[in-house]
Amino acid sequence: MAEELHVHKRFRVVASKLRAGSLDVVMLSPGDASALGVLPGERVQLICAHCGCGAALLVSRDVEPGTVVVSEGIYEKIKITGCESVHVVPLGVPSSLGFLQRRLRGEKLGPKEIKAIIADIVQGYYDDAGIAAFLSAQTMRGMDEEELEYLIRAMVETGTVVEFGEPVFDEHSIGGVPGNSKVALLAVPTVASTGLLIPKTSSRAITSPAGTADTMEVLARVAFGPDEIRDIAKKVRGVLAWGGSLNLAPADDIFVRVERKLGLDPPVQLVASILAKKLAMSVSTLVLDIPMGKGAKVETEAEAERLASMFLQQAGRLGIKLRIALTYGGEPIGFTVGPALEAREALETLMKGGGSPSLVTKACSIAGLLLEMGGVSGPGKGFDKACEILRSGKSYQKFREMLEAQEGDPDIKPEDIELGKYTYTLESTSEGTVTHVDNHVITMAARAAGAPQDKRAGIRLHVKVGYRVSKGDPLLTIYANSKTKLKEALQVLATMSPVAVEGMLIKVLP
Amino acid sequence: MAEELHVHKRFRVVASKLRAGSLDVVMLSPGDASALGVLPGERVQLICAHCGCGAALLVSRDVEPGTVVVSEGIYEKIKITGCESVHVVPLGVPSSLGFLQRRLRGEKLGPKEIKAIIADIVQGYYDDAGIAAFLSAQTMRGMDEEELEYLIRAMVETGTVVEFGEPVFDEHSIGGVPGNSKVALLAVPTVASTGLLIPKTSSRAITSPAGTADTMEVLARVAFGPDEIRDIAKKVRGVLAWGGSLNLAPADDIFVRVERKLGLDPPVQLVASILAKKLAMSVSTLVLDIPMGKGAKVETEAEAERLASMFLQQAGRLGIKLRIALTYGGEPIGFTVGPALEAREALETLMKGGGSPSLVTKACSIAGLLLEMGGVSGPGKGFDKACEILRSGKSYQKFREMLEAQEGDPDIKPEDIELGKYTYTLESTSEGTVTHVDNHVITMAARAAGAPQDKRAGIRLHVKVGYRVSKGDPLLTIYANSKTKLKEALQVLATMSPVAVEGMLIKVLP
Repeated sequence: MAEELHVHKRFRVVASKLRAGSLDVVMLSPGDASALGVLPGERVQLICAHCGCGAALLVSRDVEPGTVVVSEGIYEKIKITGCESVHVVPLGVPSSLGFLQRRLRGEKLGPKEIKAIIADIVQGYYDDAGIAAFLSAQTMRGMDEEELEYLIRAMVETGTVVEFGEPVFDEHSIGGVPGNSKVALLAVPTVASTGLLIPKTSSRAITSPAGTADTMEVLARVAFGPDEIRDIAKKVRGVLAWGGSLNLAPADDIFVRVERKLGLDPPVQLVASILAKKLAMSVSTLVLDIPMGKGAKVETEAEAERLASMFLQQAGRLGIKLRIALTYGGEPIGFTVGPALEAREALETLMKGGGSPSLVTKACSIAGLLLEMGGVSGPGKGFDKACEILRSGKSYQKFREMLEAQEGDPDIKPEDIELGKYTYTLESTSEGTVTHVDNHVITMAARAAGAPQDKRAGIRLHVKVGYRVSKGDPLLTIYANSKTKLKEALQVLATMSPVAVEGMLIKVLP
Repeated sequence: MAEELHVHKRFRVVASKLRAGSLDVVMLSPGDASALGVLPGERVQLICAHCGCGAALLVSRDVEPGTVVVSEGIYEKIKITGCESVHVVPLGVPSSLGFLQRRLRGEKLGPKEIKAIIADIVQGYYDDAGIAAFLSAQTMRGMDEEELEYLIRAMVETGTVVEFGEPVFDEHSIGGVPGNSKVALLAVPTVASTGLLIPKTSSRAITSPAGTADTMEVLARVAFGPDEIRDIAKKVRGVLAWGGSLNLAPADDIFVRVERKLGLDPPVQLVASILAKKLAMSVSTLVLDIPMGKGAKVETEAEAERLASMFLQQAGRLGIKLRIALTYGGEPIGFTVGPALEAREALETLMKGGGSPSLVTKACSIAGLLLEMGGVSGPGKGFDKACEILRSGKSYQKFREMLEAQEGDPDIKPEDIELGKYTYTLESTSEGTVTHVDNHVITMAARAAGAPQDKRAGIRLHVKVGYRVSKGDPLLTIYANSKTKLKEALQVLATMSPVAVEGMLIKVLP
């Protein structure tokens, strides 16, 4: 096409103090931009010996002709290659755009077409418009069994694959319930203590007040390269790491960013996201937790089963042994929400060998299923076995080894973990029974208080569903690190009720 | 929601030399950005007394705290309001996003929901991801009759409506055939000469080598405000103006930009785009040209009729009297392609009262239909009447009045119009009959030569389908303003043949 005829010129790379996040921008002089035939705001591609990346073009008379000023993110990428000059070419049309158009017209795509789209997305050849179009098709049409397998494999192949040379076990939750991030801190050491290999990677919180990586980071380092993960796993059998520094299925992070922006969460993408990351970590045996209940991602059993069958179908195609745990997700797990508070509760539970029933039961159920699948326990015996391991202190012992391997302090005590300085305790205004603790309101208030960026922010529940309370009894305490953040959390609670207390008398008519 | 609790601070506006095109960017200091809770690359909204506009956020340590550095496009918008400081707030989630999500899930939307989405798009509250999601839904699901009417009305209501206080006539082509931009230069003065009011607004070329506005701009001014258009129309009855400076259905320009990026052209958007712009100009009687044939936008009669029925249905709902002309679009119109060359051919034809059969027949057919609809000619008599007006010199006389009213030179001669200095004439390599002149190749070569940005660039055809040629006869001449651009056009012709010449002997087998 005519666009291919442009002369490609080399430009000297100039670093700038400009931070553009996922947008990635570069600046050229007006003359250079016009010689390239690119308009401001359009996308260009930077090519050097070892890399190719996409960015949005800005034009400024302050830029010296022959140079390209790049944002920090781009500079980081180029610096690694050692290149001092790059070609800048109009991004034009990604070569897979025709496949995306066919998909939007309702055609079925084959493995090569899907791989081409995913590879172009990972290379930065699509801007958010193209990614949004792909996700819109995922929302409107979804994918059949075969297409979804191609998608997952393409997502894996366009990133790093970490291999361990032996069977890899893992557990994962689709999330959506506050307080859930600490479950893995109990389940992983419990499984690892039996000798099964469980190098769990997880994300930081996206829309929740704490991800497992955020909570573990209160106690230890969580960002490791592939070799470090492998070394730690081989040594102590269990790891709790952040997946973000491993480049596992990197298309997923791009999809998640645009999904958030559009408020979309298509089920096919949820399945692809989780299974691609697990396949990239060579997981062969997986327990997947689908919390179910009011305010959770999945509200009905029918929905949960539809989603579960997609997961099971794909796991079968990909050679992953999968069992799914539908768990109760109608209120928060345990009594804490937010990284530091959850790290405290996990550590207390590990040290005591017991704690909040919802937390202990959930962690032991999930660990138990893995023990059964790994042949450590007989069918139906896993739960009891896991509880026994936890009670005996073996889980805590393994967790200490993990803390040490991950450069944390194995001797840390729960009370050593610092919490937000500013607190407010909400009290019951009536006598009665707690009938509901609202996931959504608790999540919003904990995030308003600063979680997860501020690890010390969060909420401690004093009651859960079924508790009897009198007027003036504490319901929950908010922790924040500034008066402003505390006030913001209180504003959330001022408009929506986090805890419902109902007496025998519901209402009085005039 | 929690996001609404951020404190909104005023920032002093600092102009920059940064050009960001449709991206629109602003820069804050790291501290200010973090206080607002916005990450680099996310969108923010600038609010002052008289305006609100969206932009992408960049962060730089070079920006002084308390100031916001804005790109040129944003500065232009703010300058008009006279504001020296603005509030910067996280754009967060556009309030209509829920409606867009419902549409992606396949629900039907009502007038309020569609209006809310369009208003948010026009305000800049959506970035390209949201707009792409909307367009993906338009591609995958389309819209029913009612939704399309709501869309068109919303597009009109979110922009300027120009009123004339009397019936307004207009003609429009869906385009796709090179050489077509000059048809309006003949048809509009022909209609206006009978006293009908025809204030035609048109776009500049998007993917073609010349739009009517580009071609008219060779001869006169085309950018006018609403009052100027009204004054000129009232005075000389005909106008050939650029729609871009009128803010007619501004959502359309945003849609077109993202459609181009994704290579999408959903029929519902084509109908909405054209009818919204016409309704915004208060057009009551319209002739719509749908060129049909190989290489045109519409290739088959079935396709043309599907599209035509959508147009007729909507025109009925909107109260526009519409007739549709399916025209032959299998090769370029007339002998010229590119603004200056087409302006020359139009002027020659007007002065002589005749010229290329394809051009004259098409212009008189379209003008004739309008004359019939306006009661100037009886049914079936319009074409002859239009030809008579053209032949008599009345069209030229009216065109001269239009040139004068639009600040052009009414005495300009065709040979006064400057053409590209560098030319190359392609000759026939064989003897035979011209069987095909390729719209697509001609368009690409003319654009490679510099059209439409360079008005003097383009292609003059020496032959059309049916012409007999001998070896060495000229087929076409390319005009460009630099050797580089001429070479780029030749490279297009080196790989694809613009003109097919076939003898009686098709092929010799060994």
